Amino acid sequence: MKTQDCGALRAAHDSTATTLSGWVSRRRDHGGIIFIDLRDRSGYVQIVLNPETAERLRSEWCVEVTGTVRLRPEGSENPALPTGEVEVMVEGLTVLNPSLTPPFYITDDVDADESLRLRYRYLDLRRPKMQDNLRLRHQTVKYIRDYLDGHGFLEIETPILIKSTPEGARDYLVPSRTHPGNFYALPQSPQQLKQLLMVSGVERYFQIARCFRDEDLRADRQPEFTQLDLEMSFVEEEDVLGLIEGLYAGLVRELTPQFKIKTPFQRLPYADAMARFGSDKPDLRYGLEMADVSDLAAETEFRVFRGILDRGGIIKAMAVPGKGGLTGADMRRMEDTAKEFGAAGMSHVRLTGDDDDALLSPGLRMPVEWVRRLAERAEAQRGDLILLMAGPARLANQWLAAMRSHLAAQMELADPAMLSFAFVTDFPLFQWDDATERWDSAHHPFTAPAPGCEAMLDGEDLASIPSRAYDLVCNGSELASGSIRIHQRELQEKIFSILGYSAEQISERFGHILEAFDYGAPPHGGIAPGIDRLVAMLAGADSLREVIAFPKTQSGSDLLFGAPSGVDAGQLRDLAIRIVE
Amino acid sequence: MKTQDCGALRAAHDSTATTLSGWVSRRRDHGGIIFIDLRDRSGYVQIVLNPETAERLRSEWCVEVTGTVRLRPEGSENPALPTGEVEVMVEGLTVLNPSLTPPFYITDDVDADESLRLRYRYLDLRRPKMQDNLRLRHQTVKYIRDYLDGHGFLEIETPILIKSTPEGARDYLVPSRTHPGNFYALPQSPQQLKQLLMVSGVERYFQIARCFRDEDLRADRQPEFTQLDLEMSFVEEEDVLGLIEGLYAGLVRELTPQFKIKTPFQRLPYADAMARFGSDKPDLRYGLEMADVSDLAAETEFRVFRGILDRGGIIKAMAVPGKGGLTGADMRRMEDTAKEFGAAGMSHVRLTGDDDDALLSPGLRMPVEWVRRLAERAEAQRGDLILLMAGPARLANQWLAAMRSHLAAQMELADPAMLSFAFVTDFPLFQWDDATERWDSAHHPFTAPAPGCEAMLDGEDLASIPSRAYDLVCNGSELASGSIRIHQRELQEKIFSILGYSAEQISERFGHILEAFDYGAPPHGGIAPGIDRLVAMLAGADSLREVIAFPKTQSGSDLLFGAPSGVDAGQLRDLAIRIVE
Repeated sequence: MKTQDCGALRAAHDSTATTLSGWVSRRRDHGGIIFIDLRDRSGYVQIVLNPETAERLRSEWCVEVTGTVRLRPEGSENPALPTGEVEVMVEGLTVLNPSLTPPFYITDDVDADESLRLRYRYLDLRRPKMQDNLRLRHQTVKYIRDYLDGHGFLEIETPILIKSTPEGARDYLVPSRTHPGNFYALPQSPQQLKQLLMVSGVERYFQIARCFRDEDLRADRQPEFTQLDLEMSFVEEEDVLGLIEGLYAGLVRELTPQFKIKTPFQRLPYADAMARFGSDKPDLRYGLEMADVSDLAAETEFRVFRGILDRGGIIKAMAVPGKGGLTGADMRRMEDTAKEFGAAGMSHVRLTGDDDDALLSPGLRMPVEWVRRLAERAEAQRGDLILLMAGPARLANQWLAAMRSHLAAQMELADPAMLSFAFVTDFPLFQWDDATERWDSAHHPFTAPAPGCEAMLDGEDLASIPSRAYDLVCNGSELASGSIRIHQRELQEKIFSILGYSAEQISERFGHILEAFDYGAPPHGGIAPGIDRLVAMLAGADSLREVIAFPKTQSGSDLLFGAPSGVDAGQLRDLAIRIVE
Repeated sequence: MKTQDCGALRAAHDSTATTLSGWVSRRRDHGGIIFIDLRDRSGYVQIVLNPETAERLRSEWCVEVTGTVRLRPEGSENPALPTGEVEVMVEGLTVLNPSLTPPFYITDDVDADESLRLRYRYLDLRRPKMQDNLRLRHQTVKYIRDYLDGHGFLEIETPILIKSTPEGARDYLVPSRTHPGNFYALPQSPQQLKQLLMVSGVERYFQIARCFRDEDLRADRQPEFTQLDLEMSFVEEEDVLGLIEGLYAGLVRELTPQFKIKTPFQRLPYADAMARFGSDKPDLRYGLEMADVSDLAAETEFRVFRGILDRGGIIKAMAVPGKGGLTGADMRRMEDTAKEFGAAGMSHVRLTGDDDDALLSPGLRMPVEWVRRLAERAEAQRGDLILLMAGPARLANQWLAAMRSHLAAQMELADPAMLSFAFVTDFPLFQWDDATERWDSAHHPFTAPAPGCEAMLDGEDLASIPSRAYDLVCNGSELASGSIRIHQRELQEKIFSILGYSAEQISERFGHILEAFDYGAPPHGGIAPGIDRLVAMLAGADSLREVIAFPKTQSGSDLLFGAPSGVDAGQLRDLAIRIVE
């Protein structure tokens, strides 16, 4: 029903016969001759019809036309359209299917409400931008598969119906009909399965894996999402990072060369990332670096600083170039922003002249010499502003990092054409969870401690144990997370026990993988890059929903099909379950 | 931890240094020198150790060795092993992880019970044959993706959490935490989603899709399985079949050239397949064709034939070459086999000489001339046996087709090196279901009737309406099933109504896709080849479980993890469900 795609016609096709199939898009009437943009997935071409034929047609009708390609009359070419030099003189037309009037225009500058677009997703996907996104996603995943195949990886499918984890609060459960009262769970990730594949001697495994997490959905999460799941045996950190750098650099250069990237990707130890940027996923497209100035702050009489320092907190400084001239009103607005991010307050010093001194609080003016040392530490120049954030280390970093992002956006410091990749390495193994009053894995419990640090597991200072975890970050987002894993039963059991599991819980939850480690499990490690976020970044999309064919809303609803929904009593009876009102 | 793979070493590496990592496999002691086969995923290589080093090692220990490759002494080469010309003189050895004694030997001629193998799947997968199967599966799916990418298809992921179908008896249900009392379902196939992608203007979609079916598992089914899901717009039957023929022929020639195939694939209308082979998925590697001889049977006085014919049944004949000399005892055994397949009985004629006549029942001997006409119809020669099966058409075909397979296996008629692909076409649109006393779709309700036959939908003879469905079959198995679909709302509604759905049910179940058809849905069609069965066939595996990394048993259990399993009361409370005892 088509000899060519609409978008493929060029001047070289002049005077040739063509059969096209597609959808009626924009229509123009020029002196009784009707011009219609015919659209298929390849793009648009202008077709020319007599008024009687054209009169029958409406927007989004699906038609087949036969005709002759010809050059457009001089002066009427459209250089904005790849097919803009030609048009098709229609000789025959078949209506393949008429259309009701769509609830919104099928155009890239659609102004329809997103819920309407999701309700009619099959029309929303007709928009050229959405077709581009689907194509880019296909190409991205194809590139990943080809690259890993070329590096000796096997793609292996792991089950979607797996064992539920006791207290797996974010597991989707699936009642079993054949085993009444029992349930499968959907995988939050194939973590244990891929480690078992390493025990199986697969050595290089990957999978474009669907994962599921039943949680209150944050701004831009989906209940089901896709990750590149990858695991390798007989490797160390740099083997994984090198492979991943080659993958991302190659992918961007091949598919989205409009982006600038720098290789090799920066390696940034976690401690440095926190010290310099207050974040483990810093946007490295701009400076706005931070410095710990607790020692300088301790020299002041400023009550706020002294209080924070006495309680073990820190004071961090961040220089904001060229903003020394902000007014008091400007600064009050900036302090309000800091409060929105959660900070109790924020101090500042403006470097406006030779005789800078600083008003840290009403009545407390610090001498020029102190300000000079502060400026040196914060790498600030005359004319700059220095922000000072005080608080417990974790929060002071978080608040100041939020200010850093805010100011970068306001000052347009980030080059939108730059993708600034970096690996953050040497994460801590544990972090203390104030809420549960327990040690938690910073990454996950299968992550290995740094070599030689195993003895520290018996000590008191668990927070200082470095791990073999690493993240890939880009432009302030985490794109992938991974680690070298534990492959020895004894060490793995010790970690579980530090995490507060009883011997019985360990056996019930992790018995199968511990047992597998008993049979010559090889050293191994891996990483799990998210696919949805990567494609969204490459597509310049605001939301993951723009790069998923049939996404769900933030409440986990499918507006097109109306899922989730009620089910028949008979179905529940078969599954031996009942709904509790 | 390795400079080379074990299986990669060759004579050309003589005298070079190497570092290998792998698992300790077979060990031999020759006059105090220990030879060990070191195994990794690439294969085996022989390593040579001094007894003190070797003494520490046990089966399946994971080790790293450094050493020097050398040619094996003349006469001790092993031509059966790709690395059989060389061995590695070990200079350094690191134990990466010891192993308990495995519950079964890691060897291709494993004799362990399958449930033990599934319980320790991570060890079972270490067997070279299983590694080959995983690799073949990876290559197969890679080939499919590359081929379809080359033909302009986009791979698009569709959701796993979809809307449940009312009375969807084989749906897995997933309770929603955020919408208590409501459920998602897991897709039995992405049928409606892929049709919506055609409405979206995607034109060429595919996906390697996970599908789920909660049913009593037949001999070789899995609760979750993988299919190539594929759909195209603006196409007719031959567009789909040509694409699929190119895919399968190319795939076999590239990946498993040990198999013989013939192109073009035979096109066999359903009616011919049933008439000649009594089956819609005939094994075409051998003859044993059938003929309807009801008219000849009507000439006899044989009570059984007359009774069947009077009740609208048929009598079919099948010639079995060279078996005219079977004894009465042989024939009784064969009749017993037919009875096992469900037949009430089976008659036969032995063509043993010039003066053939036939004993159809005690006391009924048919004349030579009748036997001559029967032989001509059945294309039987002197020395052949003719089997005669009587019954209702569906059952007579089924029973005689079972005899055909049975005899072919017994006579070893099928060339195991031949893959005999064929497309079965022109399936009927409807079939009558005796159990429910309703018309059922022979394929599925979205299949289009043959062009020009739409008017028959208003008539009485629904069984005679041909459809646009087609299957790909090979060696007696169905590998893929597809059709040109309905793309017009009115026609689709009429089909649903013939299938017995009320207007309310149609709207509730299929409202979204009917609505989509209202917006210029294009003509489209597709197919859904199973991946598990294809790979099993190419791998020469007896069971789908041999080509799935972590399969489930026939009762849907995962013996490694112990799924499905009980869950915490708290988890059920969160989901607002309760187990009914």
